[in-house]
Formats: sequence, structure tokens, C-alpha cells
Amino acid sequence: MPVNLDLAPAIAIAGVDLAPVAAGLKSDGSLDMLLLRLTSGSRTAGVFTKNTFCAAPVHVAKSHLQASHGAVRAMLINSGNANAGTGEPGIAMATQHCQFVAEQLALKPNEVLPYSTGVIGQLLPDDVMRSGITKAAGLLANSGANSDTHENTASSVETWAAASRSIMTTDTEPKLTSRQCTIAGKLVTVTGMAKGAGMIQPNMATMLAYLFTDAAVPQEDLQQALTRAVDLSFNAITVDSDTSTNDACMLSATAVGQSVNSTDADWTAFVATVSAVALDLAQAIIRDAEGATKFITVNVAGGKHSDDCKKVAYAIANSPLVKTALFASDANVGRLLMAIGKADVAGLDPSRIRVLLGDVCAFEAGGIAQGYTEAAGSAEVSKSDITINVELGAGTASASVYTSDLSHDYVSINADYRS
Amino acid sequence: MPVNLDLAPAIAIAGVDLAPVAAGLKSDGSLDMLLLRLTSGSRTAGVFTKNTFCAAPVHVAKSHLQASHGAVRAMLINSGNANAGTGEPGIAMATQHCQFVAEQLALKPNEVLPYSTGVIGQLLPDDVMRSGITKAAGLLANSGANSDTHENTASSVETWAAASRSIMTTDTEPKLTSRQCTIAGKLVTVTGMAKGAGMIQPNMATMLAYLFTDAAVPQEDLQQALTRAVDLSFNAITVDSDTSTNDACMLSATAVGQSVNSTDADWTAFVATVSAVALDLAQAIIRDAEGATKFITVNVAGGKHSDDCKKVAYAIANSPLVKTALFASDANVGRLLMAIGKADVAGLDPSRIRVLLGDVCAFEAGGIAQGYTEAAGSAEVSKSDITINVELGAGTASASVYTSDLSHDYVSINADYRS
Repeated sequence: MPVNLDLAPAIAIAGVDLAPVAAGLKSDGSLDMLLLRLTSGSRTAGVFTKNTFCAAPVHVAKSHLQASHGAVRAMLINSGNANAGTGEPGIAMATQHCQFVAEQLALKPNEVLPYSTGVIGQLLPDDVMRSGITKAAGLLANSGANSDTHENTASSVETWAAASRSIMTTDTEPKLTSRQCTIAGKLVTVTGMAKGAGMIQPNMATMLAYLFTDAAVPQEDLQQALTRAVDLSFNAITVDSDTSTNDACMLSATAVGQSVNSTDADWTAFVATVSAVALDLAQAIIRDAEGATKFITVNVAGGKHSDDCKKVAYAIANSPLVKTALFASDANVGRLLMAIGKADVAGLDPSRIRVLLGDVCAFEAGGIAQGYTEAAGSAEVSKSDITINVELGAGTASASVYTSDLSHDYVSINADYRS
Repeated sequence: MPVNLDLAPAIAIAGVDLAPVAAGLKSDGSLDMLLLRLTSGSRTAGVFTKNTFCAAPVHVAKSHLQASHGAVRAMLINSGNANAGTGEPGIAMATQHCQFVAEQLALKPNEVLPYSTGVIGQLLPDDVMRSGITKAAGLLANSGANSDTHENTASSVETWAAASRSIMTTDTEPKLTSRQCTIAGKLVTVTGMAKGAGMIQPNMATMLAYLFTDAAVPQEDLQQALTRAVDLSFNAITVDSDTSTNDACMLSATAVGQSVNSTDADWTAFVATVSAVALDLAQAIIRDAEGATKFITVNVAGGKHSDDCKKVAYAIANSPLVKTALFASDANVGRLLMAIGKADVAGLDPSRIRVLLGDVCAFEAGGIAQGYTEAAGSAEVSKSDITINVELGAGTASASVYTSDLSHDYVSINADYRS
């Protein structure tokens, strides 16, 4: 059961055709493939995992994104198999599947980007992938949407919901949401979907996330907006400190609606909207994290640099001892101090550091805060949404990180599941 | 139940008087304080935690070690309360307790070093500490050993065993062992005890470890031998990536026996013996780690620098996904690749990396190894002592790290226990 997962309803984006299908990669017959088509004139930006063992589809997606100068026309996403640790045969297969999609949709191969998520170290079953692609391409052909004009797409909100389910692995709920802003008096929509529940400490991107907008945005500006949004969202979450081999986060602008670029007065509003959708999805991943019973926000302020604050926040958010204490609703201030202290941030003065559970100050001036009571601390950490505030007293920078607790179910899920 | 914990029997060290007592810090009435006296002429070296929030006794022990130029005469160790996160009052109390010990044993205050382990964030109960010290000092007075001569101590092996129990917190077994070597034709003994089962990723030292030798060693050489030993032992283990606020590792030479220094031909043999005792104790901590069902050795070879190898080894050893998979005896090669890839080591070529489970090659040339079978991998990770061998193919450096698995019991212990 996700922790207080309540996303705003999704709004379909004009210029995006979606075909989620059950290709047969998942043994239970559920949706496991998504073929999506972007209207001509769309631009796409992306950020990808920094893991040395990045998966075959990550190599191919990065290469095709560059070769097409962001003029991406289709994305193929499968769950159930990550096509990671598969060497040259894995890269050859991801490349061939892009070619196969291109043939079916009359596109160039490098206009098609592949993504995979699921078990690591196994080759994709080629026949299953090709029959799934054929099925999905058939759906797109019959969807009634004319993706080469700026007509509204035929993909209904129900299809968007099915698409967000098709990319799930150990997620218990799909993650799909929208936000809107006004650019030069016209409504612009940003809709995003994401998957991921474990192997989550993204490094430049999370598991898989796809954001779309109907705005027209130049390629460089689109990349800038995405990088900014990811830094504050997918790059600020952790379930288990483990960075996936397959992380990717994409932002596609279909150019069906209003134009906006980084020199416009409304640019900030656009970036804020993209960032808000990214943060909604990133937090949704944590709310649905493997075994999560708590959603934990760690705010660190008063640092010399925001990197220092992020280090301290991640040291807290990744500490198994902090996470098991919060699972038990234990106001264990000592473990928070331990985590802050091990963060390897130079020049911290323990006597200037304050630690608050919610609004309750638990530690200051080098010792347990005057008037702090165990009861007041316990009340804060007994909530399902817990906030830990740390003030470093060294500067004005700040950072926030979002995480889940470490429960028996996390162990059960990861002892049983072969990722 | 510890995993295959089988240490060589301990040998008492001449010149060390031990007084383990039940002071009343632990609510169950078990041993919770150790006062130990070193004979005159002894020299002591130490390494301490790098945690910013290092505990009050760590501040005082470092200061007294320096002021006494290593001529330490007594150490006071309590379990049940870490005297950490206690600010100036905590430091004042640790200082006063050293003064109290000095009065009782007719020593100078800076010849006495304090150590605490247990719950963080609570002041020590002053009365309980003082009555415990009085009781322990009484035992030393009546022990029959004359600590100011080079006579053999009266502390029996049974007293050494009790001492090693008195410093335990969540340890299920005491850790006490000895090794011997021959220096210039004479037998030299090194005996050590350690405690620790969680909050273990030492940074320059582990929780608490005390090594003793009857050799006579100059202060600087003693420090050099300890630093070398710690680097390969206590600085190569992890239970949960959490670095304690109270870590300390001490090496005392009572000078009752043979002299040895760093210019001697036998110096290497002496350092090797100290290192072997340190490694025995460090591995014993992992074998008795909170919730451990497996003892895992991670060997990483073929790196450009040993730091690179240690980074990769720790990335594997600290990965919750690797640790839960090994708990389940799952030969999850994908998670090993993920962990190697996230280790942030520059210039690794995935196609040159080999991963072996025991002697079974599971991954090479960028993909699953030819002839590798799930059955062969499973057989290796089903053992209670598991070895993971990684070859980076980038150089000749190597490093080893020792860790435990992540089990339901780890979560239970740390959700229930207030450290």
C-alpha cells in the first residue's frame, strides 16, 4: 500500500499517441509494453543513468537522441526485462527493435528510442518483442489520430492510465499526473508518468519517467528545463541508495500548442510546471517504494553549498539505522546525529547544528534541546508523512531529499524478487 | 546466532589487570563496565572515529592519549550508554570520571582514557558510574597483581573472557582471541577484544577494540603497526554503512616481554601478528552482525588504485539489494553489476570486468559468462560463507571488504533497539 499517494488527475497531451499492450514479457499476461508516437515537429530531451553498467537500451537511446537532434518520433518501452548486462547482443537487439518499429511506423530508425526495465542479465525474447511491437503498431494505425498534423490525439485519458500501468514492475500503483500553466495567455499542459519502487537512488535520472507537454520548445531549452526539474525531483529521492542500470527521464514537447523558450517572461512558469510534475512523480515513487510505510522528507538548510546539504540529507535518507528507527516510529535522535556526522562534510561545528522532528527541536547547542520530550518527538515520527529538518548553521544553501523507511516488507520483496 | 564464529582461544597478557563489573547501566544486571590497568612502562596507540559528532569520551580519550604521550595507565569502558550527542556536559562527565579513576588508582588524570558504547543522546548516570568505578578499583586493588612491576598479571583467562563480555551491546557473542609470533627467538603474544554488531562502517576504527601485547614497542612504531592493522581489518568491514560516533581501536604494549621496533628484522612478523588479531576480530564482528545469516567476503582485484577497489567492494557490500539477494541465497548477478557500476570509479570498461561467485565465473566480456549456470551460481551463494570475486581489468591493485547479509532480523533488531 503506497503512503498517502494522491496525484492530480492526468490530462491527455495533444500530439502523443499511446499503444500499451500485453506482449507476453510478464508471465501473468498483464500490460508490459508501451509504444508511443510523437507528432511530427516534436522535440525530446533526456537524462540517463550514470551507472557504468548502463543497459543496452540506454546506450541506444542516447545515441538515437543525439543522431535525431531531439526530433524523436517514437519510444518503445518494455517492462519485465531490463536488457542490462547483456553486452553486444543486447545492444544489437535494442537497435533491431528500433528498426522494426521504424518500419512499422514509416520512420527513420534513429527517430525511435528504446527503454527496458525489469530483470537484469537476460536477453530479451526477440519473438515476443516483435509480436508485441506489431500488435502496438496496429493499435496506433487504427487509433484515428493523425500524428503528422497538429490535430488532437485520439489517446484518451483511459489509454494514458493503461500506458502508465504498462511500464510498472514492482510498483503497486501507476504514477501519472498533470499540471498546467499559462504562457502568453494560453494554457500549457505538462503530463508525466513514471515507474520505480526499488533500486532507487537516481544519478541524473530515475528509473523511467516520461514527461510530455503540448508547448513548442526549442531543443536546448527543453533539455535545460528537464535538467533543472530532474535535479530537484528524481535526483533528490532514494529508496535504497542503489542506482539502476536503466534510469532514464525524458521530456517531449509536441509543439501542438503555445510556443515558449528560455528568453520569454513566462519561461520560469513553464520550468516550474515541469519541475512540479517531476517532483509529484518522484515523490510518488517514494510513496510506493518497496515496503514503504512512511514518506520521509529530509530538509537540510544553512549549508555552505547545496552539495553539502544534499550529502547530509542523503546520509540521513540512506542510513539503514535511521530508516529502521522511523519504520518503528522511534524518535531516535542519536541515529540522526550519527548520520549527519558521517556525511563527510568539512567544517561542520556540532555546537551550531540543530535537528528538528517536524517543528519540534530535538537537538541544539551540542546536546538534546531544552524542553524536548520523547513524547513530542514520538508524535512527529508516528505520522505517516515525516519531516526531518536539519540546520547546519554554516551558510545559506539548502537541499531536500525524499525517502521511505526500511521495513520487513522491503527485505521480503527483495529476497523474493529477481531484479 | 553468529555465522561460523570460531576464534582461537585467548591468552592473558602480562601487565594487564582487568576488572569487569556490573555497574547497573544495563537494566538486566549484566556486566557493563570494564576498568583496566596497564603496568608502568606500557605504551598505547589509538585510532578514532571520523564522525563529526564524535562522542564525548572520544574527545577526552584523544586529548589524554596526546597529553600522556601514549603512557596510558588505565582505560575505563562502559556499555549501555554512548555519552554521545551530550555536548559540554558529556565531556565534563567523561573528564570527571577519568579524574575519579585516577584518584582511586593513584594515577594522573591524563593517564586514564574513557570509552562508552550504547544509546546515543543521553547523559551518563553519574552515581551509577562512580559506584561502578569504586567497585572495579576495589577488584584491581585486591587482584594480587602488582601492576607497577613487570610481574605477570593476576588476570586469568576467565577474567579476560568476562572483560570481553562487559563491553558488549547488541553482540550475541564476545569477541576475544590471541595470536603469537617469535621475535628474536622469544615468544610475543597479541590478544584483542572487540564489540560491535551494528552501526558498522568504521572510518579509521571500529566500534570498540582493544589489542594488547607483552612486547616493548616505541610509541611511534606502535601507532604505525596499529594504523596498518586497522586499515586491512576494521576499515574493511561494513554491516550497514553507518559510522559510529564512538569508534575507537587501541593497541597497548605492556613492555613486560621482548622489545621490538620498526628497524628490526622481525618487525614485519610483529605487524602481521597484530594485523591478524585485528582481522580476526573485525571478521568476528561481521559474523555476529545484527541479523546476519551469511558472512560475505568481497575481493576486488585488477584496479588502478586500491582505493578504486575498496570503492567497488564497499558499493557491493553496502547495497541493500545485494544483501537481501544473498540473504535469500539468490545468485543475483544483475545486482552485483548494478553495484559495481554505481561505485563511481572512473575509466572502468564493462567489457573487461569479470564477476565470480566463489570460483564460478558468472559475468565476463560484457555478458553472462559462457557455460555459467544458475545452479552453479546458486550453489555458491547458498553457502554460509560466500566469496564474491571481482576483476576490474584495469590494473594490479586489490582490496577486500567483509560484510553480512540484510535479513528480517536486522530490521527487527533495529526497529526494536534504541541505539
